[in-house]
Amino acid sequence: MQILSIKLANHSYPIYIGENAMDNPQYFNQHLKNNQKVLIVTNTTIAPLYLERLKHTIAISGIINSDNLFSIVLNDGEQYKDWSSVERIVQCMLENSFDRHSLIIALGGGVIGDMVGFTCSIYMRGIQFIQVPTSLLAQVDSSIGGKTGINHELGKNMLGAFCHPQAVIADTSVLKTLDKRQLISGIAEILKHAFIADVDFITWLESNIQNVLNLDEQSIKYAVYRSCQIKASFVEQDEKEQNIRAYLNFGHTFGHAIESHMGYGVWLHGEAVGCGMVMAARLSMLQGYINNQQYLRIFNLIQNYGLPVIPPTYKDMNFNDYIKYMSKDKKNQNNQINFIILKSLGNAQKNIATSKEIECSINI
Amino acid sequence: MQILSIKLANHSYPIYIGENAMDNPQYFNQHLKNNQKVLIVTNTTIAPLYLERLKHTIAISGIINSDNLFSIVLNDGEQYKDWSSVERIVQCMLENSFDRHSLIIALGGGVIGDMVGFTCSIYMRGIQFIQVPTSLLAQVDSSIGGKTGINHELGKNMLGAFCHPQAVIADTSVLKTLDKRQLISGIAEILKHAFIADVDFITWLESNIQNVLNLDEQSIKYAVYRSCQIKASFVEQDEKEQNIRAYLNFGHTFGHAIESHMGYGVWLHGEAVGCGMVMAARLSMLQGYINNQQYLRIFNLIQNYGLPVIPPTYKDMNFNDYIKYMSKDKKNQNNQINFIILKSLGNAQKNIATSKEIECSINI
Repeated sequence: MQILSIKLANHSYPIYIGENAMDNPQYFNQHLKNNQKVLIVTNTTIAPLYLERLKHTIAISGIINSDNLFSIVLNDGEQYKDWSSVERIVQCMLENSFDRHSLIIALGGGVIGDMVGFTCSIYMRGIQFIQVPTSLLAQVDSSIGGKTGINHELGKNMLGAFCHPQAVIADTSVLKTLDKRQLISGIAEILKHAFIADVDFITWLESNIQNVLNLDEQSIKYAVYRSCQIKASFVEQDEKEQNIRAYLNFGHTFGHAIESHMGYGVWLHGEAVGCGMVMAARLSMLQGYINNQQYLRIFNLIQNYGLPVIPPTYKDMNFNDYIKYMSKDKKNQNNQINFIILKSLGNAQKNIATSKEIECSINI
Repeated sequence: MQILSIKLANHSYPIYIGENAMDNPQYFNQHLKNNQKVLIVTNTTIAPLYLERLKHTIAISGIINSDNLFSIVLNDGEQYKDWSSVERIVQCMLENSFDRHSLIIALGGGVIGDMVGFTCSIYMRGIQFIQVPTSLLAQVDSSIGGKTGINHELGKNMLGAFCHPQAVIADTSVLKTLDKRQLISGIAEILKHAFIADVDFITWLESNIQNVLNLDEQSIKYAVYRSCQIKASFVEQDEKEQNIRAYLNFGHTFGHAIESHMGYGVWLHGEAVGCGMVMAARLSMLQGYINNQQYLRIFNLIQNYGLPVIPPTYKDMNFNDYIKYMSKDKKNQNNQINFIILKSLGNAQKNIATSKEIECSINI
């Protein structure tokens, strides 16, 4: 078992990474209190796989009385990451007299984690939660760093808060039950962490494609761990994204536009980010930062992990469609779209772009 | 003009108190930035009185271009302090490409202030705002301290966040246009601050009833200033209400129950709090903390300021109705209702109560 710690100005918390972490009551115990009410929030896909297993772990911890352990199963999918799902969780808590000292466990992927975190940030002005991420994407990215939120019909993650969990418990054994498409989607964020921060990790990822895709135990554990470590370092240096934390958004400006325009679930988040990183790399090349060879290294790594590198055709999504979504990106200031580009491999920065540059990055 | 400053661990901000503060661009200027988009949120009662006046002040500041100044007018009333109003503000901001660097000015009473603060806490994970409180209640209480939120059908202020403004600009001249009932409702919170923290202020309030009610300039300015000072001191010592900040909830456990059960607007917030303080004082007496004479001093001061001291009859609201709402109070822990009681005049603490004590406090 590996333990990483995120150290923030006002709060620090552990990330436990390892096989069967979900079965070990000791990771939960130290974050639970006697007489506390606990709600497990999960979805229809995850509940049959892990809900009883997690309940069992909490039960044998001996801290939470079974009368105080509740669960709620939401619909699965990005399209349900909205206010009505938050409202369902809130209703359940109020009906069962959850107070400020109650706690939620988020059992699921990024959607469950983001929604639970957001709900906890606003329920009675803030209650505690634990993340048990079950997708690769949630384990390497979204469960860490305290960004929580829900979507609005006019844009992804438009409503949210910075709100950190008490702990993240990343059980790598659950990755075996992920379908291949979900697994590959999560790899996009691992690649992103390498592209913005660590050339050696890029090289390692190039050399270990089959090991990672086959979930070789040592390889996937290293990929998850190194990914969490890079993410944690950006978060520790810039918790509220005033500055370098925005680099973690590499590929997301284009990616969010694709995801939103094509309809949530049509392109998975990681797929859109994979393709978005190709576009952002192209923009970096157009602006003279990286050369053709570096661009192709990025393009090929994304492609070789099975992620899409070709965007929707102009028939499905044209320049104006991109601009419509990108102009509402949270990084923007004074009506100018901000992009994260690569100055070199392992080295990012924020930049603006001309319409021509954007157009050329899209028509890839 | 008097200026108070709230000093918190990560943020400090000024409270400007005085006649015609709303007309002075210098109070706004230092909190605005060039090219920033600004949205004024107000309601149908306040808009005809002050919206153009405030827009004029912002315009002559010369910092905000008129193309960047927006306004939205919501329905007036506690019953509109809900998600659908937040959604209206969010929609307006997204449609007009407000970004993370945009700002909202809350022009109104406690409802507008709470909703705007909450919206700012979740819009793109947090944007800045300025409070321009127009009710006495908002000037002496709700605009200060960063508690923001909206109501849920199962309880008042159940969803919210701690989120502080950049500044509070309390223009005491606007109190002249308040109707008497609204004015008196605001006085309840002034009395509360005296009861929990300052015997001398109780004595001053006993001696200045007519001056305060007639809005004598010196008297009302002192009452507002001292009230803000007491509130600020509790907030500075315990920003997130882990401890003594809860004392500011004196009278609110009973009061919120009355307000919620009778229907928002039937009893105004301050009216319910006034009556709730009588009940909480009675509980303090029943538990042996204050004597009959001290209880009567509280009872009479509340009564003499024109606030209700008699609760709804059992036909309108019985013991179980109180318990239903009080059992969802945010101060509660482990299914026990927590009350704020007075150990002595000017001295509060948190306590639980037996059913019999609660019943006797209600049947007043």
